[in-house]
Amino acid sequence: MEFTPETVKQLIEKKIAFVERMGLKVLELMPGHVKLMAPLEGNENHIGSMYAGALFTLAEIPGGALFLTTFDPSKCYPVIKELTIKFLRPAGSSITTEIFLSKEEVERIIRDLSDKGKAEFVLHGELKDLAGTVVAESHGVYQVRSTDKTWAVVDSRIT
Amino acid sequence: MEFTPETVKQLIEKKIAFVERMGLKVLELMPGHVKLMAPLEGNENHIGSMYAGALFTLAEIPGGALFLTTFDPSKCYPVIKELTIKFLRPAGSSITTEIFLSKEEVERIIRDLSDKGKAEFVLHGELKDLAGTVVAESHGVYQVRSTDKTWAVVDSRIT
Repeated sequence: MEFTPETVKQLIEKKIAFVERMGLKVLELMPGHVKLMAPLEGNENHIGSMYAGALFTLAEIPGGALFLTTFDPSKCYPVIKELTIKFLRPAGSSITTEIFLSKEEVERIIRDLSDKGKAEFVLHGELKDLAGTVVAESHGVYQVRSTDKTWAVVDSRIT
Repeated sequence: MEFTPETVKQLIEKKIAFVERMGLKVLELMPGHVKLMAPLEGNENHIGSMYAGALFTLAEIPGGALFLTTFDPSKCYPVIKELTIKFLRPAGSSITTEIFLSKEEVERIIRDLSDKGKAEFVLHGELKDLAGTVVAESHGVYQVRSTDKTWAVVDSRIT
């Protein structure tokens, strides 16, 4: 399977039915940088703002998305270990989150993968409404694991 | 609106479309005690176990469910402040969670509501597969807020 940008976009938006049902969309997708959007419509809670589970999903998916854009899926795979989400304000519009992994952090992950066969990484996210107000903050702990214990090199496509 | 057990069940399962779409079901519902279930079917991730967002939602909804069974919705309302979920093992079957609020804790919440017009409470949850294995743990921080600042008594229906 070739991981072209369009293939990765389809994987993120369509591969998990739960994610597809909430209408999550990829806005930007490149090595070390993703921006995703969840629409309010269809994801409202009992008072008309975005339901916590939709905000969680928007906060969680960037880990997998960054994995797909930044690492080589034929050599390793990602696991989510833990995610904390703080709800700061009602989310009254579509919501976006934009997450970055620095070149230095990607290199550190690759070193750990080479040395130990696994590497942990943390993603901090801000979830913003259309006015740019932060409605929630996320702190996700992910792990990348090598699919081959003898493996020692991962392509990093970050520039 | 009268909050009969059937009404509360319908509110939990149907009021939020996001929750209805994942097929979350109420198994037990009483003051101070709820048990909920999420089916695996329709909620699978890319490797066939339950997607993190479905597990989060199963962990989050008990806060609202316990509020509805235990407090008087005409006098106060619940808010989620923060939730941490730790993913321990792949969730390979339908998953349940069962949460309790003790009589003492309900009384403490009522005292805080009377004194301050709001009260915080914490729910610890274990998410279990059909074999009883804990696949995830949740730690949710909720707040109940009075709808009337002069209000000083909340019915507690816990026994």
